[in-house]
Amino acid sequence: MTTVEECSAAEQELPYNVFSRACPSRGTLEHVTGRWGALTLGALHEGSFRFNELRRRVDGVSEKMLSQTLHALERDGLVHREAQPTNPPRVDYELTPLGRAVTERLMSLIHFVEGRMDDVLAARERYDSARASR
Amino acid sequence: MTTVEECSAAEQELPYNVFSRACPSRGTLEHVTGRWGALTLGALHEGSFRFNELRRRVDGVSEKMLSQTLHALERDGLVHREAQPTNPPRVDYELTPLGRAVTERLMSLIHFVEGRMDDVLAARERYDSARASR
Repeated sequence: MTTVEECSAAEQELPYNVFSRACPSRGTLEHVTGRWGALTLGALHEGSFRFNELRRRVDGVSEKMLSQTLHALERDGLVHREAQPTNPPRVDYELTPLGRAVTERLMSLIHFVEGRMDDVLAARERYDSARASR
Repeated sequence: MTTVEECSAAEQELPYNVFSRACPSRGTLEHVTGRWGALTLGALHEGSFRFNELRRRVDGVSEKMLSQTLHALERDGLVHREAQPTNPPRVDYELTPLGRAVTERLMSLIHFVEGRMDDVLAARERYDSARASR
């Protein structure tokens, strides 16, 4: 297991530091912000869903990638998997309290980016025409 | 170019929507939250840096990946590249005002995750021992 010593930087108040490559916080950040992780958390922010419902919401995800994403988020304690004792078995996924707190910060970032896309697209046009005119 | 119509969902207030796979906001979110994008923005949150200084701060990044990351962030209008007319040429990178606003939300997420890693690691242990005892 990675120890706290491998993460902490002298100037850092917290014992975990994503800038250090050995720190497990880097892996968790990637589970949260990776393409499918971010979209899965965002979908679960709306409520509890079954696997196939989630798959429809996260446009473009494959069954395999959604399954891997959910396992990683469940292992990190961000998503709770609830298997109902029905026949056929029904499995629901929902955010844990920790997952909800993380997702609130993630959604703040996502909504900010969505809200500034006009500026981003204008910057892209300026960048591309500056390159084309060289 | 992707039009606004390809992004917007009926229930969505904003014209851009990362949950839609054709929306350019999904690409920008990935530039911001991808492994190297997030760490590069986090490093630039501390100030302006030259390429090699940045490379040392973003532990583990290759020259090629840092270069690609900076180009994507510059094209999206989040990072400003300033070439000084010196010999040898000196190039500094810094956040734009938009990049700074995005990075503040990203850092809020990163610091929150770092601060809850004890809970994440405890969840991983519970998950792994539950699987091992099956």
